[in-house]
Amino acid sequence: MMEHVQVEELALESLSQPKSIAVFGASEKPNRIGNLQLKALLNAGYAGDIYPINPSADEIEGLTAYKSITNVPVEVDLAILCVNANLVEQCLIESGKSGVKSAIVFASGYSEIGEEGEKAQARLKEIADEHNINVVGPNCVGLLNTTNGLMGTFSPGLTDVPLHDKREVGFVTQSGAFGVLTYIAAAQKGLTFKYFVSVGNEADVQFSDVIEYMIYDPETKIASGYLEGERSAEKLRDLSTKALEINKPIVIMKSGRSDAGSRAAASHTGSLAGSDKIYDGFFKQTGIVRADDYDDIISFSKLFLTDKLPTGKNTVIVTSSGGRGINEADRCESYGLKIHELSDRVRTEIEKNIPEFASAANPVDLTAEAAITQPELFIEPLKVLVNDPDTDNIIFTEFPTQWDENTPVLQEFVDLCKKSDKFIFVTTFPLGDMSYPKATEYLEANGIPVIVGDMNPIRSLAKLADYADSYRAHHNQPVIEEVPTTEKVNVHHLLPKDTTLSESQSTAVLREYGIQTTEHGIATTVDEAVDIANKIGYPVVMKIDSEDIPHKTDVGGLQLNIQDEAEVKAAYETISSNVAKNCADARINGISVQQMLPQGTEVIVGVTSDETFGPVIMFGLGGVFVEVFKDVAFRVAPITRSDAASMMEELKGLELFHGVRGQAPVDKEAIIDVLLKVSQLVMDYKDEIQEIDINPLIVYEEGIVAADALIVTK
Amino acid sequence: MMEHVQVEELALESLSQPKSIAVFGASEKPNRIGNLQLKALLNAGYAGDIYPINPSADEIEGLTAYKSITNVPVEVDLAILCVNANLVEQCLIESGKSGVKSAIVFASGYSEIGEEGEKAQARLKEIADEHNINVVGPNCVGLLNTTNGLMGTFSPGLTDVPLHDKREVGFVTQSGAFGVLTYIAAAQKGLTFKYFVSVGNEADVQFSDVIEYMIYDPETKIASGYLEGERSAEKLRDLSTKALEINKPIVIMKSGRSDAGSRAAASHTGSLAGSDKIYDGFFKQTGIVRADDYDDIISFSKLFLTDKLPTGKNTVIVTSSGGRGINEADRCESYGLKIHELSDRVRTEIEKNIPEFASAANPVDLTAEAAITQPELFIEPLKVLVNDPDTDNIIFTEFPTQWDENTPVLQEFVDLCKKSDKFIFVTTFPLGDMSYPKATEYLEANGIPVIVGDMNPIRSLAKLADYADSYRAHHNQPVIEEVPTTEKVNVHHLLPKDTTLSESQSTAVLREYGIQTTEHGIATTVDEAVDIANKIGYPVVMKIDSEDIPHKTDVGGLQLNIQDEAEVKAAYETISSNVAKNCADARINGISVQQMLPQGTEVIVGVTSDETFGPVIMFGLGGVFVEVFKDVAFRVAPITRSDAASMMEELKGLELFHGVRGQAPVDKEAIIDVLLKVSQLVMDYKDEIQEIDINPLIVYEEGIVAADALIVTK
Repeated sequence: MMEHVQVEELALESLSQPKSIAVFGASEKPNRIGNLQLKALLNAGYAGDIYPINPSADEIEGLTAYKSITNVPVEVDLAILCVNANLVEQCLIESGKSGVKSAIVFASGYSEIGEEGEKAQARLKEIADEHNINVVGPNCVGLLNTTNGLMGTFSPGLTDVPLHDKREVGFVTQSGAFGVLTYIAAAQKGLTFKYFVSVGNEADVQFSDVIEYMIYDPETKIASGYLEGERSAEKLRDLSTKALEINKPIVIMKSGRSDAGSRAAASHTGSLAGSDKIYDGFFKQTGIVRADDYDDIISFSKLFLTDKLPTGKNTVIVTSSGGRGINEADRCESYGLKIHELSDRVRTEIEKNIPEFASAANPVDLTAEAAITQPELFIEPLKVLVNDPDTDNIIFTEFPTQWDENTPVLQEFVDLCKKSDKFIFVTTFPLGDMSYPKATEYLEANGIPVIVGDMNPIRSLAKLADYADSYRAHHNQPVIEEVPTTEKVNVHHLLPKDTTLSESQSTAVLREYGIQTTEHGIATTVDEAVDIANKIGYPVVMKIDSEDIPHKTDVGGLQLNIQDEAEVKAAYETISSNVAKNCADARINGISVQQMLPQGTEVIVGVTSDETFGPVIMFGLGGVFVEVFKDVAFRVAPITRSDAASMMEELKGLELFHGVRGQAPVDKEAIIDVLLKVSQLVMDYKDEIQEIDINPLIVYEEGIVAADALIVTK
Repeated sequence: MMEHVQVEELALESLSQPKSIAVFGASEKPNRIGNLQLKALLNAGYAGDIYPINPSADEIEGLTAYKSITNVPVEVDLAILCVNANLVEQCLIESGKSGVKSAIVFASGYSEIGEEGEKAQARLKEIADEHNINVVGPNCVGLLNTTNGLMGTFSPGLTDVPLHDKREVGFVTQSGAFGVLTYIAAAQKGLTFKYFVSVGNEADVQFSDVIEYMIYDPETKIASGYLEGERSAEKLRDLSTKALEINKPIVIMKSGRSDAGSRAAASHTGSLAGSDKIYDGFFKQTGIVRADDYDDIISFSKLFLTDKLPTGKNTVIVTSSGGRGINEADRCESYGLKIHELSDRVRTEIEKNIPEFASAANPVDLTAEAAITQPELFIEPLKVLVNDPDTDNIIFTEFPTQWDENTPVLQEFVDLCKKSDKFIFVTTFPLGDMSYPKATEYLEANGIPVIVGDMNPIRSLAKLADYADSYRAHHNQPVIEEVPTTEKVNVHHLLPKDTTLSESQSTAVLREYGIQTTEHGIATTVDEAVDIANKIGYPVVMKIDSEDIPHKTDVGGLQLNIQDEAEVKAAYETISSNVAKNCADARINGISVQQMLPQGTEVIVGVTSDETFGPVIMFGLGGVFVEVFKDVAFRVAPITRSDAASMMEELKGLELFHGVRGQAPVDKEAIIDVLLKVSQLVMDYKDEIQEIDINPLIVYEEGIVAADALIVTK
């Protein structure tokens, strides 16, 4: 990460708004990168000064060329290095000495080629820090600001794309080629990115630095990106709070969802791709919108730029094709939107003004016949729906193609939409140029986006509705929710370095943090065991206590439901002899005699240390549920009370907490309480704790008790 | 369904290969349906005779017109009715009398408008049957055979689309408008359907009739369709077996997945849409390929028409964009394909001939640099992979755009592909016309499809690999698998009409079919209860036995774990008084005293009667699993042994059957056995049994016992 960046001073300004640019390796020869880059700036109408740098030319493309940056008479903001890797260091150092503030490095041959390249990349970073230069790259396709002609790239995919008027979305990408494809696809669908930044190997400027810049840039309304592996999760998390505060969504397509994807991601950028489940949890807790593909970024942006937010998830589809209507309804429900039944009143109102063969159910089907012969009917359901309190969103599918801006009913249509707080847009079937209704431009100019596609428009509406929920939750709180913290408890002495703690050692740590564990004592003789059992009361459980035996059942180190003294004695002998036989070398603290807990609902709380995110909290149902169904939720520590609650809500087995088959509901507050305590514990000791497993944690109608625990230290 | 259709005689031939056509309502007036239809036939170069029928014209569009079909001098194969609903019946009757064999009816105003329309539709069906005419429609957009100029439609969406050379895919649709959009989209992607049939309201010719025709038509290689609700599930099931036999996939996009979708489907076509879970089971057991959207039909067709089938699921991605590679890998894994790790030998072989900065991992990333400067490198991984026994499929993502058919390396590339049994194709990012590599036509002519898209090409490969499995399973069996049947057992007397059976009545039926139930007796006095318990041995369970009390626990009618005579007596009193208090009016058979079963794995087997599919078998994990996780699988009865096995495989909790946490695996054969017996029972008594619930059915390491059961009769 660029440590020298101070967002307050907009340190990336010299990259995105440079007043002057030096092009190293500028050339007259066509198809040379140095020529393509120079022409790209000239063709894009960059208004600042351009200084071609070339040791053996006096003039290039009509501009005065300089042998070296040191010969340039003024201080230059941005250096674009169109030179091979072997010249990069020298050019950067000279640039630094000449007061250049930022640089783009296209050359490859760095961390992507292994050890040698990594060393070269580390040297780039040193030079950047020493000379206070923001370096984008190496191994990137460049940086664009489409509002000021800064076409910092040689890629024809970027330079040859026509620009649309509105440019309010920033886009940063960890994959150059994929980024270029996304840029073109967006432009084809009517969306020109304001910024396009390919961060390449991220020697200096990183993904989150660019997101940060876009969050603080008042003219950028959405900060979007393509991510393979984030290096500054903490920074991204801080930014997400700011973003929610100012209603500027961060939209990220994160790839490497599958194991194979992660494997590829690792070998591709050398970055550390965390497990996808953890990313999912992270996005949920930060309100960052997760795009499933490039097209989600485009359709989400088009919806968000209407400046309206959905008031809820109740959605009505109005269509001229019953088939399309059904399909969109399917999509809506599968992405969590609700195709609600319209009230009798609303249906009757709509029916008044549409033909008998049309349907006023949801989807409202005006039929193909009406679309051809009476397109003006399309306004009838709208007239009624804008006043329906149950309706949040209205999707027009296969809008009348023949309407144009001079169609009187279209003007009325647009007026109704503009006055309404309903979220309204048009989707059309993807048929290339045939897709767009004539009125597309007029509709879009009036805040009614026309989105071509099948899944994406619907998925994007669903994501926007979720975002709106996060946004409202953030703003409707009397006080912005903080991670609850109490004073740090001193358990340092209970956490020896780099080892696995026994159950009793592990539960001792939990108890210090206020988590209830089973009443117990450690016996080293049969008589001690009997004494402890008598004191606790029967039935009891007996378990071997050893830091060397994390899985007690496997070695015969556990006996349940012990009813009296005789059974205590028998159990003591059995466990001792099993352990002596099966793990002769284990260090033994003794045999733990514990209260046998009454039956309750078994859950699991765990912690794992992720290379990207640091300590991560896991919550799930215990027993076979976690083993077979893998029904668990992750959040990055520290977590808030709402994070803890949402982990529970996320489980497929949620209903079990509410009491099924006549059982009482469980104490959800007690679960949240344990999650928050564990979160505080690992934040307090994140340099010492590697993993925690509390399994099972038994929750009752009132209260919760850790029946077993395991801590691994660093 | 057309009862008069005999596929052997290809009764739909007169519809798809008519030698002559009469156009009712033919007109000179532009934009009239009767004019559009006539011109469509003329422009498409239909080679048979065309007879315009119009009471007030002598010549239309240069053809001799006739006042009535009765005036036409020859027998006509096909009548196309471009007339309003009020004239349809008369035209049909006259056609029938004149020997017309088939008809297309465009008019609307039938079942889609309610009762009145339904009556009119029933009359159409009567006329069709009486005069032996195959009627397509009403309320449809028509029928096309693109190989003989039969453009039986007035829809400009269909008539104005250019045709591609290869026309081997048939398509039938229950939604006209959606079908037209799909037809155009397919054509834009290089696929012209051979047949396009919009069945409209299906008064006579139904969806499955058209599928049948396409299955038996030797020139059709794929039978595809868009379905909202099937009316002849049994016919479709029979066809699916034939289709697997001759390797002609049936590909169906079924909409109405969600509840809302089903609701819309019902109101749209008036057809009965079964629950989506049942359709899913039906498609699995028949080998019918389920398309998730229109685009799946297109990309699946392009892959299938290569005449190769994937040998398995191991897939290698070769790309010039690391980002695209990762995304495709994500898609592959999410759809069940495997991005396998390449062996060291294969990696080393590939690495020999690609640059250091490229990656020979899977995805193989040649990088954008190579794509631009050394596109010939793209052949290097192929040379190695065609000889890798671990690789089944190779996907080239972002293929070199500049290669054309004169590129020598491309010819070599194509030769390698053709000689290999690997399944090889190209996918490209969707950027409209920019999407296609120059060599697209050459590649496709050589059996290497180029598919534009993100999800669809990958999903289609996964579906094709599944289809190949079904196909091989069907063909590798020594004998085609039949539903196992035994003689029908007479339980008619145990199934009184239209009622709910008590537990003992229900289990009696199951026992007759060889399903083991708990040992039990019905006591009507305390002493009888004690006698029965003593005979069975302790512990026992006692339950109220009454056809009026299906849920015994709710009324205090169940006592578990009864250990001795005293407890039997107490339980008898408790149950009697609870029932007397809670359900005073219930008919009581007595109190059932049963063996208490040892703990095992609880499963549920159920039967429901579906309006579309008839008896449907359900299997799942019991207890909270079925209630909370809804982890169940459906198949339409009767089921084969493989169907039963696949129901088990489908469960998310499958692992539980293999023994988790040190438990023994369960007796899977015993489960299959019960499923087959239940299947036979409901097939034998499908007119008498409405529902069955065996819950719980307890399965052990060896054996299985029904611990409770409920049968509802018709």
